[in-house]
Amino acid sequence: MTSNAATLLGPGDDAAVVAVPDGRVVVTTDLLVDGRHFRRDWSTPYDVGRKAAAQNMADIAAMGAVPVALVVGLATPPDIPAFWAERLADGLREEAARTGAAVVGGDVVRSDTVVVAVTALGDLQGRTPVTRGGARPGDVVAVIGRLGWAEAGLAALRRGFRTPRAAVEAHRRPEPPYEAGPIAADRGATSMIDVSDGLLGDLGHVAVASRIRIDVESAALPVADVVAEVAAACGVDPLRWVLTGGEDHALAATFPDRAAVPDGWVVIGRAHEPAGETGDVVVDGRRYPGSGFSHFAADA
Amino acid sequence: MTSNAATLLGPGDDAAVVAVPDGRVVVTTDLLVDGRHFRRDWSTPYDVGRKAAAQNMADIAAMGAVPVALVVGLATPPDIPAFWAERLADGLREEAARTGAAVVGGDVVRSDTVVVAVTALGDLQGRTPVTRGGARPGDVVAVIGRLGWAEAGLAALRRGFRTPRAAVEAHRRPEPPYEAGPIAADRGATSMIDVSDGLLGDLGHVAVASRIRIDVESAALPVADVVAEVAAACGVDPLRWVLTGGEDHALAATFPDRAAVPDGWVVIGRAHEPAGETGDVVVDGRRYPGSGFSHFAADA
Repeated sequence: MTSNAATLLGPGDDAAVVAVPDGRVVVTTDLLVDGRHFRRDWSTPYDVGRKAAAQNMADIAAMGAVPVALVVGLATPPDIPAFWAERLADGLREEAARTGAAVVGGDVVRSDTVVVAVTALGDLQGRTPVTRGGARPGDVVAVIGRLGWAEAGLAALRRGFRTPRAAVEAHRRPEPPYEAGPIAADRGATSMIDVSDGLLGDLGHVAVASRIRIDVESAALPVADVVAEVAAACGVDPLRWVLTGGEDHALAATFPDRAAVPDGWVVIGRAHEPAGETGDVVVDGRRYPGSGFSHFAADA
Repeated sequence: MTSNAATLLGPGDDAAVVAVPDGRVVVTTDLLVDGRHFRRDWSTPYDVGRKAAAQNMADIAAMGAVPVALVVGLATPPDIPAFWAERLADGLREEAARTGAAVVGGDVVRSDTVVVAVTALGDLQGRTPVTRGGARPGDVVAVIGRLGWAEAGLAALRRGFRTPRAAVEAHRRPEPPYEAGPIAADRGATSMIDVSDGLLGDLGHVAVASRIRIDVESAALPVADVVAEVAAACGVDPLRWVLTGGEDHALAATFPDRAAVPDGWVVIGRAHEPAGETGDVVVDGRRYPGSGFSHFAADA
């Protein structure tokens, strides 16, 4: 457990008390289940902690808010050694510290399956929350953060490799561009989303909520060398991982024009009036086949 | 999912936004695991939802705050029918509505074990949070709410009975005295705790945090007829269930004097300077044997 300036009352009482000077609190929760969202032979408990904190705080950032606190529920079987929970807590705390947030409370119980339940709280600092529903025809679509890295790492692990290290580490510990969320909000982003299920799938959520069509230009997509390298080794088009790979927790957003796009973001397409049904996302004018994302298990 | 005046942005985006005009948010989280915190043959999914919401909101009330929002994570095996999750959601929503709170977000995943993770948020409405650590020697100790009811219901269920209905229902659906928490804070309660693990155990937490000794007078303890009835049938001293039974989510608090104790509370003892080690809780001047509480499973 940790503390920060926002922690008015930390762990050890019936509840914690956290300062949210804005008078509005942003809240999101996610469960990670052993064998579905992580594998204990592929990720250390420290990695699982980092990842659990990161994916929740990325959701906070995607609203234009700053993470301030986490609470954590941990269910573990009796055969999980004590150090596993301790290292998980280390990972949670250290990832939280990257944004200035603190772990302010938790609950530990027994279960047959390891389940990590994280809830993140954020402060808007006066900003209007940026939803998925505000994109307008004519807006430019931009991304910041990694795309396809975690998928490349997962592909390597699935084939029994522990390298390339950058890809495997990206699978274990996403590095969401937390600071970019509030900056995008300040610059007038009209919509924003955490890319957790794959770029096309998540842009699809924006397109549906905003009642628009999104056209992505494949030539504009950032393809990292490590993604290209693993994709080549696997005989896969690296664009597939960039477009459909999940769990990197990049941010995607729409802006009224190119001039509003903050440094570090890459413009990858544009929003349009829907042609027929809303919610379409097309790549170079065509639907991209098989754009769904799933975790290891088909039903996760 | 539900909405209330505090829900500025409800489910369906990366995160929800909840108004906490006070500028401080009270937050607590609990996991309920199938077979440990509930049994699906003893409790309906609706009951489990009510209980999961109640135990979290009781923690909010015990700080002197008013619950405003819940987020819920649900992990279920594929063989759990869809209606189970729907009825759970009904129970969560309806219990939340009892305090004016709303379910503003959630996450549903697959797992081999049913796990319900609830996080509750509360607003202090200007009050100073009431911790476990503020009781002083000379304070009076008081309780409000049910004591021993859930334990009586559990005893009946364990023996294969479904009656007395009031006891069995109390096990399935606690009825915390939510409103009493903020009122006690307004009346100057010096410490407060949600009685989740049994009165003696939870008073022990107050005694440790406040560095005091607590003397409970057994003659002052409220013994409900239904508790006495089941205890008699089981050949148990009903005081044992009142003193050590968990999961009723009564509130226990300390007040500077009897005049400060609000209506509805029962004065059951007094705080004293510790005699030797701090944290002692005695009943009629003696330590009470076997005051620990556990759920069905010894390691829950």
